[in-house]
Amino acid sequence: MRIHHDQLEVRTRGKGLYEITDEVQSRLDQRGVQNGIVTVFMQHTSCSIVIMENADPSARRDLEEFFERLVPEDGEYFTHTAEGADDMPSHIRMVLTRTSETIPIADGKMQLGAWQGIFLFEHRRASHRRKIFVTIMGE
Amino acid sequence: MRIHHDQLEVRTRGKGLYEITDEVQSRLDQRGVQNGIVTVFMQHTSCSIVIMENADPSARRDLEEFFERLVPEDGEYFTHTAEGADDMPSHIRMVLTRTSETIPIADGKMQLGAWQGIFLFEHRRASHRRKIFVTIMGE
Amino acid sequence: MRIHHDQLEVRTRGKGLYEITDEVQSRLDQRGVQNGIVTVFMQHTSCSIVIMENADPSARRDLEEFFERLVPEDGEYFTHTAEGADDMPSHIRMVLTRTSETIPIADGKMQLGAWQGIFLFEHRRASHRRKIFVTIMGE
Repeated sequence: MRIHHDQLEVRTRGKGLYEITDEVQSRLDQRGVQNGIVTVFMQHTSCSIVIMENADPSARRDLEEFFERLVPEDGEYFTHTAEGADDMPSHIRMVLTRTSETIPIADGKMQLGAWQGIFLFEHRRASHRRKIFVTIMGE
Repeated sequence: MRIHHDQLEVRTRGKGLYEITDEVQSRLDQRGVQNGIVTVFMQHTSCSIVIMENADPSARRDLEEFFERLVPEDGEYFTHTAEGADDMPSHIRMVLTRTSETIPIADGKMQLGAWQGIFLFEHRRASHRRKIFVTIMGE
Repeated sequence: MRIHHDQLEVRTRGKGLYEITDEVQSRLDQRGVQNGIVTVFMQHTSCSIVIMENADPSARRDLEEFFERLVPEDGEYFTHTAEGADDMPSHIRMVLTRTSETIPIADGKMQLGAWQGIFLFEHRRASHRRKIFVTIMGE
């Protein structure tokens, strides 16, 4: 049993879903782990890690629109507004989704379903460099 | 330290919560792992894995009704509609809940609280065969 | 590779976020694990574990207010009401957030980002003693 840590940095250009499945799988390939689990952990509180349908871009656009409506930027009760109108909604959207995903590894591959992809879900408008910590435990 | 993979297949018959706690524990019993963690991972994007109150069915019905209202099928802004009115809401409900749960194992048992059960949360109307990947790491 | 289990008990005094980052890190320090993962698992269905911004209390208050509005206590369709008006909303808020977080450990420290803290998110009004199961796997 071994433990491998890797860090991914992803450049985002505004709100939306950015697929990182291939980047995670390539870390697995480099490490040569055949069986175990991988934890993909976001080191920020204004964006998320989610597993989502990765075939049809329209599904991702509808998901983004849902979150715009569920947690609108103009929440009149917000007091945490010093960092911009999109900051407080970004924390709420992160809590409503996930900070990490843990995925099983078998035969050297992540055991994702046919339509599952791993995505960084960016909740801020500005460009950001996002740091993701990838920990592989296995043999 | 050992790694064991198992696959569960659960037949769903429409929307709702289906308890799988016993099925997961029976895999643990067969493997004989005394200490570690188990990751229960859903290989689909239109249903979820959640831990929920397992004593009173009325709590589960209220939860299902909440999600019907929070993510209604007639979202007028949905564009991803080719697979039916319940498809896009199913992806959103999955992102709002969880694709997997990781549960500690001690003394050969999952360390669930008194009222916690593991559930498949089906978001589609039609019957489906759902595949769940169960990975046990421990000794 | 070793497996360590610890239990935390946290006394809550009504709804809100209670930071437990230091309590989890102190367990890590005692165990002396340098590399691996830690799973922080809530053994209840009416409160959550979440990672959230830990610098500005106003962000936490806005988050709490959002959940009061998203899942109000007076849901007229609730049937699971025997344990009080705040009981059914507590289960829903738990399903919308998380029962556990899994965090990477490197160089003896949890690899949290600069503004990330681990919080117990209490959804009930009354005081409770909450049990959290902490499992460290690593070397």
